[in-house]
Amino acid sequence: MKIKNLPIAFLSTFIILSPAYSQKKTKPDPLKAEVVSSVDSRFEALTDLSDKIWSFEEIAFQETQSAAALSDYAESLGFRVTRGVAEIPTAFVAEYGSGSPIIGILGEFDALPGLSQNTVPTKSPLHEGAPGHGCGHNLFGVASLGAAAAIKDLIDEGKIKGTVRFYGTPAEEKFFGKLWMIRAGLFDDVDVMMDWHPAAETKTAVQKGLALVDFQVEFYGQAAHASADPWNGRSAADALELYTTGINYYREHIKPTVRIHYHIQDAGQVVNVVPDYSRIWVRVRDSSREGLEPVWKQVEKMASGAAILANVDYKVSLISGIHEILVNRTGSAALQKNLETLGPITYTEEEQVFAKKIQESTEKPQIGLVSEIKPMEETEEHSMGGSTDVGDVSYVVPTIRLSATTAPNGTPWHSWAVVASGGMSIGHKGMAYAAKALSMTMVDLFQSAELREAVKEEFKEKKGDYVYKGIVPDGPPPINSNLQ
Amino acid sequence: MKIKNLPIAFLSTFIILSPAYSQKKTKPDPLKAEVVSSVDSRFEALTDLSDKIWSFEEIAFQETQSAAALSDYAESLGFRVTRGVAEIPTAFVAEYGSGSPIIGILGEFDALPGLSQNTVPTKSPLHEGAPGHGCGHNLFGVASLGAAAAIKDLIDEGKIKGTVRFYGTPAEEKFFGKLWMIRAGLFDDVDVMMDWHPAAETKTAVQKGLALVDFQVEFYGQAAHASADPWNGRSAADALELYTTGINYYREHIKPTVRIHYHIQDAGQVVNVVPDYSRIWVRVRDSSREGLEPVWKQVEKMASGAAILANVDYKVSLISGIHEILVNRTGSAALQKNLETLGPITYTEEEQVFAKKIQESTEKPQIGLVSEIKPMEETEEHSMGGSTDVGDVSYVVPTIRLSATTAPNGTPWHSWAVVASGGMSIGHKGMAYAAKALSMTMVDLFQSAELREAVKEEFKEKKGDYVYKGIVPDGPPPINSNLQ
Amino acid sequence: MKIKNLPIAFLSTFIILSPAYSQKKTKPDPLKAEVVSSVDSRFEALTDLSDKIWSFEEIAFQETQSAAALSDYAESLGFRVTRGVAEIPTAFVAEYGSGSPIIGILGEFDALPGLSQNTVPTKSPLHEGAPGHGCGHNLFGVASLGAAAAIKDLIDEGKIKGTVRFYGTPAEEKFFGKLWMIRAGLFDDVDVMMDWHPAAETKTAVQKGLALVDFQVEFYGQAAHASADPWNGRSAADALELYTTGINYYREHIKPTVRIHYHIQDAGQVVNVVPDYSRIWVRVRDSSREGLEPVWKQVEKMASGAAILANVDYKVSLISGIHEILVNRTGSAALQKNLETLGPITYTEEEQVFAKKIQESTEKPQIGLVSEIKPMEETEEHSMGGSTDVGDVSYVVPTIRLSATTAPNGTPWHSWAVVASGGMSIGHKGMAYAAKALSMTMVDLFQSAELREAVKEEFKEKKGDYVYKGIVPDGPPPINSNLQ
Amino acid sequence: MKIKNLPIAFLSTFIILSPAYSQKKTKPDPLKAEVVSSVDSRFEALTDLSDKIWSFEEIAFQETQSAAALSDYAESLGFRVTRGVAEIPTAFVAEYGSGSPIIGILGEFDALPGLSQNTVPTKSPLHEGAPGHGCGHNLFGVASLGAAAAIKDLIDEGKIKGTVRFYGTPAEEKFFGKLWMIRAGLFDDVDVMMDWHPAAETKTAVQKGLALVDFQVEFYGQAAHASADPWNGRSAADALELYTTGINYYREHIKPTVRIHYHIQDAGQVVNVVPDYSRIWVRVRDSSREGLEPVWKQVEKMASGAAILANVDYKVSLISGIHEILVNRTGSAALQKNLETLGPITYTEEEQVFAKKIQESTEKPQIGLVSEIKPMEETEEHSMGGSTDVGDVSYVVPTIRLSATTAPNGTPWHSWAVVASGGMSIGHKGMAYAAKALSMTMVDLFQSAELREAVKEEFKEKKGDYVYKGIVPDGPPPINSNLQ
Repeated sequence: MKIKNLPIAFLSTFIILSPAYSQKKTKPDPLKAEVVSSVDSRFEALTDLSDKIWSFEEIAFQETQSAAALSDYAESLGFRVTRGVAEIPTAFVAEYGSGSPIIGILGEFDALPGLSQNTVPTKSPLHEGAPGHGCGHNLFGVASLGAAAAIKDLIDEGKIKGTVRFYGTPAEEKFFGKLWMIRAGLFDDVDVMMDWHPAAETKTAVQKGLALVDFQVEFYGQAAHASADPWNGRSAADALELYTTGINYYREHIKPTVRIHYHIQDAGQVVNVVPDYSRIWVRVRDSSREGLEPVWKQVEKMASGAAILANVDYKVSLISGIHEILVNRTGSAALQKNLETLGPITYTEEEQVFAKKIQESTEKPQIGLVSEIKPMEETEEHSMGGSTDVGDVSYVVPTIRLSATTAPNGTPWHSWAVVASGGMSIGHKGMAYAAKALSMTMVDLFQSAELREAVKEEFKEKKGDYVYKGIVPDGPPPINSNLQ
Repeated sequence: MKIKNLPIAFLSTFIILSPAYSQKKTKPDPLKAEVVSSVDSRFEALTDLSDKIWSFEEIAFQETQSAAALSDYAESLGFRVTRGVAEIPTAFVAEYGSGSPIIGILGEFDALPGLSQNTVPTKSPLHEGAPGHGCGHNLFGVASLGAAAAIKDLIDEGKIKGTVRFYGTPAEEKFFGKLWMIRAGLFDDVDVMMDWHPAAETKTAVQKGLALVDFQVEFYGQAAHASADPWNGRSAADALELYTTGINYYREHIKPTVRIHYHIQDAGQVVNVVPDYSRIWVRVRDSSREGLEPVWKQVEKMASGAAILANVDYKVSLISGIHEILVNRTGSAALQKNLETLGPITYTEEEQVFAKKIQESTEKPQIGLVSEIKPMEETEEHSMGGSTDVGDVSYVVPTIRLSATTAPNGTPWHSWAVVASGGMSIGHKGMAYAAKALSMTMVDLFQSAELREAVKEEFKEKKGDYVYKGIVPDGPPPINSNLQ
Repeated sequence: MKIKNLPIAFLSTFIILSPAYSQKKTKPDPLKAEVVSSVDSRFEALTDLSDKIWSFEEIAFQETQSAAALSDYAESLGFRVTRGVAEIPTAFVAEYGSGSPIIGILGEFDALPGLSQNTVPTKSPLHEGAPGHGCGHNLFGVASLGAAAAIKDLIDEGKIKGTVRFYGTPAEEKFFGKLWMIRAGLFDDVDVMMDWHPAAETKTAVQKGLALVDFQVEFYGQAAHASADPWNGRSAADALELYTTGINYYREHIKPTVRIHYHIQDAGQVVNVVPDYSRIWVRVRDSSREGLEPVWKQVEKMASGAAILANVDYKVSLISGIHEILVNRTGSAALQKNLETLGPITYTEEEQVFAKKIQESTEKPQIGLVSEIKPMEETEEHSMGGSTDVGDVSYVVPTIRLSATTAPNGTPWHSWAVVASGGMSIGHKGMAYAAKALSMTMVDLFQSAELREAVKEEFKEKKGDYVYKGIVPDGPPPINSNLQ
Repeated sequence: MKIKNLPIAFLSTFIILSPAYSQKKTKPDPLKAEVVSSVDSRFEALTDLSDKIWSFEEIAFQETQSAAALSDYAESLGFRVTRGVAEIPTAFVAEYGSGSPIIGILGEFDALPGLSQNTVPTKSPLHEGAPGHGCGHNLFGVASLGAAAAIKDLIDEGKIKGTVRFYGTPAEEKFFGKLWMIRAGLFDDVDVMMDWHPAAETKTAVQKGLALVDFQVEFYGQAAHASADPWNGRSAADALELYTTGINYYREHIKPTVRIHYHIQDAGQVVNVVPDYSRIWVRVRDSSREGLEPVWKQVEKMASGAAILANVDYKVSLISGIHEILVNRTGSAALQKNLETLGPITYTEEEQVFAKKIQESTEKPQIGLVSEIKPMEETEEHSMGGSTDVGDVSYVVPTIRLSATTAPNGTPWHSWAVVASGGMSIGHKGMAYAAKALSMTMVDLFQSAELREAVKEEFKEKKGDYVYKGIVPDGPPPINSNLQ
């Protein structure tokens, strides 16, 4: 696919839209035009970088090549890069400029197991059984770095003052790498944080998502020959099964906002032996960490009940947990204006055909790509859906979030279809779009102390007297964990 | 049915059989002929008494009329009767003679819930929903008292010396009344105990049966509207269901001789409320009390596990438990000889037709009544089947046990068919037969110090250093218990 | 408590409020003053009637005395009463006037099992174990009849034209009597229906509540001795337990608006028998009958799966089911105006003390009685909480609904506390208030063809092309059902 | 350890024992002395072969090197070898001689997963995680081939007439390779079959073991995001869990001789997705195939019940199943005589120390190696314990079986301890001993038509009119199966 002409198309889009923008803000902002232009000028480099990470297919805490590629690129642009922060080899920080304000931006780059896929609109693995970027994180890190680079250009030119800092945050899909980066104090001096996520629509992201906790339960029994003397066995598998039965009974007594899921990882190895070991991964979610807590504690405690029922021993190990998003509507409003300025992404006929084919394959309405800018939503008290470790960042520093279209409307997330779209022009356009919207909003933040203060004010008010405490076990992050 | 001629028929049977008997014992025993004759002479009175108790249909610890009828009859014969022993209104002791030896005999008389039945060979309740003598205990107490009365006659005549003691033992079907009678020390001075049970065959009873324990588990949760706010409820029914699930998983890990059963008694009262209370009756059995113990303790402990799973409180209450039989083969051999002397019960054509009709109704082979005397069986290490509180008596005093035919071959026990047979001539004949065999063996015991010593010797050897401890909770027997 | 002066107090309240009312409707309505006066004039009679029904404590389909008392009173006022309609002995219709329009009003009068309570503010049963009016239906039927009587007075006087019809609707708490009354066509000619319910607050009732269905599942296995030969048994209790386990697993896969509850009614009768019979009552709810349907069908089908697992037979019997409310906001707005005219109920110090004592006993904030008139609520898409068979009526005829305070704020419904309040002045005041608000709104309906049409229009629009079909089994209503 | 002198020691043992033997059989049999001598002469070669197979550590259907080594050795001795029989690459037949009678002998050689172990008396893997000969099959095939070779020598010398046939039978530990060899008709013309197994004692093997069947159940549901829309998911894991719950409830209703075990192989892959696939391996055993059948069919059918409960699809796939042993006591008696002639294996002090160390490591009584020859046991009606696909062979051709000591008394089978002993002199001695006892009994069979007829007569009588039908699915054997 030819993509060379795209940057120009994008730029012209922006110019055309400018008049509409000027209707709302009395003075059109030349710095914003400049960051848009910066992104366009690096479009090819950013696309190449994204495609490389897409092809690396590296999962949580194993993103060695991906982290290196991003770090190297940042370094090549003049950023000061610190690699292997927070005891995590693939976590890094790339900084440019100096002094206050410090505006951060988050970038993820881990893939998901089993989703390898070619850039075709029907299911077709690139490498059978291998991971794939089913969450679009190949685009995520690159766009954020692209936005930071655009700001760097302005700092270089002396047009803005302060520090821009890109955070390379690994393992968002599992373990939640940001938790240990927060624990290491890496976000403590940041004024405002920018963030985005690939999506099937374009909007400011003002829903909270869900807090969650992950823990592992292991049961330890006594093996015995299942035929000759099962009465000498105490079954770790029985304990596990009774535990899940208990969990399913408990579902009647949790609020509609709570979710409990589990993954049975080991319930015995052979058919003719009473298993002496079993292991299960448990996840509890709620719309807030306060709601999460009592359910989490009960589900943990239930392990002891199941162990008693099966007369075995047990161990509960905290893996990690994340907060729901502390939404910052003041910052979001600034972002919303920039989205409205940019307007929707435009797609080629070819891209729409590709999108509709994906929608056909995934049994969704074949309406193609939808990129119109919606009005900013109300923040629901209990928003459901997914979770992200950006939640924790948002409790440490005010965070402004964007969703940008990188896949056809209705695409099931964490699926081959996201991988397919994220590896071709649909994804590339979304990536560039995100880089523009993010850097435009960063321009606002650098330029307006008033905006920064308002953002911080809302943050303080909403956080209240809550003292953030990450849900992480003591000790180093689970880099080479046998957690499966 | 006419039964007047039966006693004579029985007596003549005995006389005819006597020669065969004399082949084994060089001197035919005139005292045995006399006890047989005594039983025959009281046949009508005993039959009337049995039919009365059959019609009283009184269940465990509520056998007021039945106990009174037996006590009154014993008193009318000159026995010294002590009523209301061991804090149980329906337990009593009827004694005759004085001094050593003291030979005891056990008599039960409680009915079973829901088995009321007319004396017809097809299911037909006498009083809908009422109890019935589905275990033949109307015959049990009467035959034993009949045997004691026959011995009394010999004491009266100075032909034997010592004490005969009839024990009116209530609540064998539930709660196990003998436990409290043992606790009260009522069996402490007895030399040898006789016992029998109605059955579908005639033989010395030399199998151990099963030890068991009964306990109740109650769960206490928190009620809530099952639709409006189930998350404010903690369900006692959930706990109960998880408890039974745990028990069923545990079945893989118990020996083939162990049984666990339960009766869910209360798992909530209405459909739209999360139940705050539930109750289950649990029974654990094994072929011996030693085997029973660890399973019992585990099943008890499991209640705490289920309570944790459902986040409720719980209470375990011991109801009672019984030992397996400590079989006395020395005494059984003496009984066996008397059975062989007596030979099988003879039945009329009418009785066989009745029996075959019952077998037809209960889908058994229609082979009628079988009363042939089998050779004494080997005592199996693990005999399965039922349990009786005679087991506990057998651990306190050497006990000799008989099974006598009172129902057609193959009759399902604890069924209407046992009630039907036990209320007419088939049952009456078995009752008289038992009284004869038991009193003949008591004659042996009174006459032969050597036999008594040999019986005691085996008892001591088998009991070893085990110090009997009844499985009963502290406090009074559960006479007016709300245990259901 | 003295109540003689209350009617006057109420009337004066009305007069005082009239100016406010006149601000909204240009002409104050003398007919409304008249119906209020009518209710006041019958206050003593209505109170006596309510107290009688309160003391009858009659549960679903057994409300013989209660139905008779209401029917007799209606007849004494000149209503034409048809008793025993719809094959239900305790269902009746009381009609006055003739011709169009026909305005109906619903009256319930059944009590709830186990809630008997004296008129004191702490738990204290009047008749231990007996039913009690824990849903305030003693007030419900009487207030509605009182409203109808007030309309009757206007018809008598020729001030309004048409027919007022009171429906005596039994068994709202179980079985849902209105379903068979609808099936009998009794509501077919009604223009608009009025309804109310006792509550802990006063407002127009504009939430939908939940649709539900009740069915019974029975399992039929094979009995066996649980110790001797459990392998010859096929356990109906196992099937039931596996069924409920299945239901609890299913909870993960139902929408947050769905509820499934069950009541285990019989899972065996004795501890030592493998049960050959078990029975469970199952209820499924959702915020609409459309959502209910697939869940209901799956839970029904699951009975067959459980039966296969336990190798037993099964039977599913529909009991009945109800629709959510089709809310009529047009009619509700008319009612709202009348509430605002009437203003809140006023309470004595004595009543507030009583109320606070109840709140103390039930661990609620001790804020006393709250009767302020709230603005009409938005109708939520998914309202949760309870269900009523008025839902079905609302799908047949446009229905306007009121909640009136008859118990202290926060009182747990279906509790002794509702019984206590409903038997004394707090309940009586709520009853009179409801009668006034309902009859005032009926005046609107009789007088304004425009209002009636607007109400019908909304009804038609919301109902769309749905053809109402009641969830009732064929055959007569379960009057003498052994459903427990 | 030096082993060169051992053969001589063995031979002298035999010579010393000969007089005792001659007391029973009037003529000492020079041919038996010759086969013993033959085995001794090949001791080094056989030991090398056994150690090679021990080091190959090849599991079921993957025994390529092991089968080749045995085949090559047989070929080197002049046997006619047919490799890859019955569509199984590692199955083979090695034949010598011609004409009748045809005496067969079975040889297994597959290892078990995860048991790799060095030849030391404490747990110490040779290759971490690799398979090991925890069932002693490295010795099994070699000893049998050694016995066949000894017979070959006699045929060569013209001392006996007929055919000796060694069967290389793979995959006894999983899948049961003999089933397809039987299906291919490879045993149809054999007169009598010899068989043995490594053990912790030395005796004729006259217990039946257990029949069993293996099948796989797969559930197919609908994936969904476990947090965002679990109600759109139908969980294959739920079905699996409800299936196992059902199985555990069923345990109450199976006979004490029945065993059901299962291995949960896949119950989902990630924590946040409702799993659309699950898989479980199920094994049912009973003391006979008749008893097995109804339980098997019920456990199969239960899969459909669980599928209904979880609203998913399912598939049951038969893997394979085996018969219990049809014991031949006539042939066993001949073997018993030869064991008594041979007498027990003698061990060095060094070997006993090794053995006691193993017993210490496995918490068994430290009594060392026990090789005394026990009197032939009674064949129990229901023998419990393990199962073997020799059971099927025994239903096709009369089969005589030996257990020979290759590990210390009390060693837990299928453990590292068996691997350790089987790779050093203790195993080697047992192997040589087995080869001698088997070839001596084959001498009896070749020489005595009378013995062969008596053996066949018992076989026919016990088999009765049962027509053998192997429990195998249609199609080829599961050589490259994805069955795990």
